Amino acid sequence: MTQAGPGLRAMIEYHMGWIDPQGRPMTNSSGKALRPALCLFACTAVGGTAEEALPAAAALELIHNFSLIHDDIQDGDRERRHRPTLWALWGQPQALEAGNTMRVLADLTLLTLHARLAPVSRMVKASGVLTGYYLEMIEGQYLDLSYEKSATITLQGYMEMVSRKTGALMEAAMYLGAFVGTQDEEQIRALALCGRFLGLGFQIRDDVLGIWGDTATTGKATGADLYRKKKSFPVVYVMERGSPVQKRRVADLYAREKLSASDVEELTSILEQRGAREFAQRIAEEQCAQALTHAHQARLSASTRQELEELVDFLTTRQS
Amino acid sequence: MTQAGPGLRAMIEYHMGWIDPQGRPMTNSSGKALRPALCLFACTAVGGTAEEALPAAAALELIHNFSLIHDDIQDGDRERRHRPTLWALWGQPQALEAGNTMRVLADLTLLTLHARLAPVSRMVKASGVLTGYYLEMIEGQYLDLSYEKSATITLQGYMEMVSRKTGALMEAAMYLGAFVGTQDEEQIRALALCGRFLGLGFQIRDDVLGIWGDTATTGKATGADLYRKKKSFPVVYVMERGSPVQKRRVADLYAREKLSASDVEELTSILEQRGAREFAQRIAEEQCAQALTHAHQARLSASTRQELEELVDFLTTRQS
Repeated sequence: MTQAGPGLRAMIEYHMGWIDPQGRPMTNSSGKALRPALCLFACTAVGGTAEEALPAAAALELIHNFSLIHDDIQDGDRERRHRPTLWALWGQPQALEAGNTMRVLADLTLLTLHARLAPVSRMVKASGVLTGYYLEMIEGQYLDLSYEKSATITLQGYMEMVSRKTGALMEAAMYLGAFVGTQDEEQIRALALCGRFLGLGFQIRDDVLGIWGDTATTGKATGADLYRKKKSFPVVYVMERGSPVQKRRVADLYAREKLSASDVEELTSILEQRGAREFAQRIAEEQCAQALTHAHQARLSASTRQELEELVDFLTTRQS
Repeated sequence: MTQAGPGLRAMIEYHMGWIDPQGRPMTNSSGKALRPALCLFACTAVGGTAEEALPAAAALELIHNFSLIHDDIQDGDRERRHRPTLWALWGQPQALEAGNTMRVLADLTLLTLHARLAPVSRMVKASGVLTGYYLEMIEGQYLDLSYEKSATITLQGYMEMVSRKTGALMEAAMYLGAFVGTQDEEQIRALALCGRFLGLGFQIRDDVLGIWGDTATTGKATGADLYRKKKSFPVVYVMERGSPVQKRRVADLYAREKLSASDVEELTSILEQRGAREFAQRIAEEQCAQALTHAHQARLSASTRQELEELVDFLTTRQS
């Protein structure tokens, strides 16, 4: 082990919620592990075993966390899951490097599929596919940063951004899981698309929770996304489809340097008047319904289909 | 092309020195392209053609530039090669993402070796090897950041850090070039080690130029590394082997918030009194000599050996 090893390792273990800043073991929850769950699900859905897909599932969780670490740096977020973020504790330069390390560990982990995938050209294919999804995810993050700077964005622009930023990796999860379990291109494609739409539904529900979520369950203040002036789905909805007065007011408030509690209250009330919460929730459910439609083309067994429906239920009604 | 595409692309093209910030074509030199040169050299040295190794060579240059973009963010450097750095122009969040993009492009580029490497398991091997080198490079960067914070480091610590930070990717360049050109493990290994030592020699010469280089050729102020209080090889040498008075004085000066021109002059004169410049230059040359010794085990032709000797001459006497 190099001298750098323990330090980088501690940062990664802390980020994952396994240790506290002093290196003591913790039993905190470390996220929903949604991407690995989708990956393992997809593999078993096409007749493989969960065990076979473990390297892919682990790689996806590592990539997801690489992106979270970099996101926190980019957004200047000092807290995640009720704890200080990596950069807030150890500085941006070190945190950036810890993120890069997780990305490399993801690649090394994926390559251990080597032993399972035959012919070996399928390993090369899996690497190439995942790398393509990475690129899409990065483009999505770049779009998101760009949107933060522009005065308004459209719902279509939002969906394009989120499809990349969140959808690409959820699609990757289902694609790789299915890919490990079968060589049936049609099944793989159907489940991959299912993952993409689940990603959209998941993200829009996330946006609802970012405004109306309960602090105790989400770990964020109610209205957190409004304080941060995020152009999340409900806000973009009013920016595009609000009355002229509503649009002007939202634009004015979002142009302020900092929002007060009463600004956030006013914003929330504009969004509610315009029905943004219900609209967002409906679109989240529609995306998940589309996900199910695609999944059906993968000719799943009745029990597998039911599992997926339960997952969709969870995604669209979850409180955290 | 996504909406993010053009923006990310422009940032990358700017970083590479191909366009100016307004998007106009430029003919500036964009670096020495040393890693691609080593890669192509290694391939031809073992009987391959330069063309075969192009994907690997391009991937290495992309990785190198990914690391430069992130380094500039981490070090807060506003200038590189006489031009503003990416983050200085477009902000840290966007620059971070441009760096991540180059890393993904590197992987995609490497995977195009697929068509050339048979059996296909060699493609998986090449990916795995490069990923391992990435990890080492990141560890080196992490060590470097850690050293910046600690009061003193030793020459041995410095060499371990630089072997990873600079040596790993130079080794990767020679390894992959040779790997494309031959299946002779011994030749590959010999050239890989040659690359590692060239990296060490290159970096120590770089450290000499960072203190005594000419502004016009290096693009940095004379004494630049001292102003930045970098613990480069000549400084570490005096920290470890200077007289008690010299050690104390260097430590005192490096403990200051900011160094004045006369501080830097004093530091330079301490380093020169202690013979740090000559010592560093000698060690740089010794590393390159070791590189040649390893290369000889690859049973190179006389003309190839001469080419390599010319490269070493360039590396140890270069002014920029």
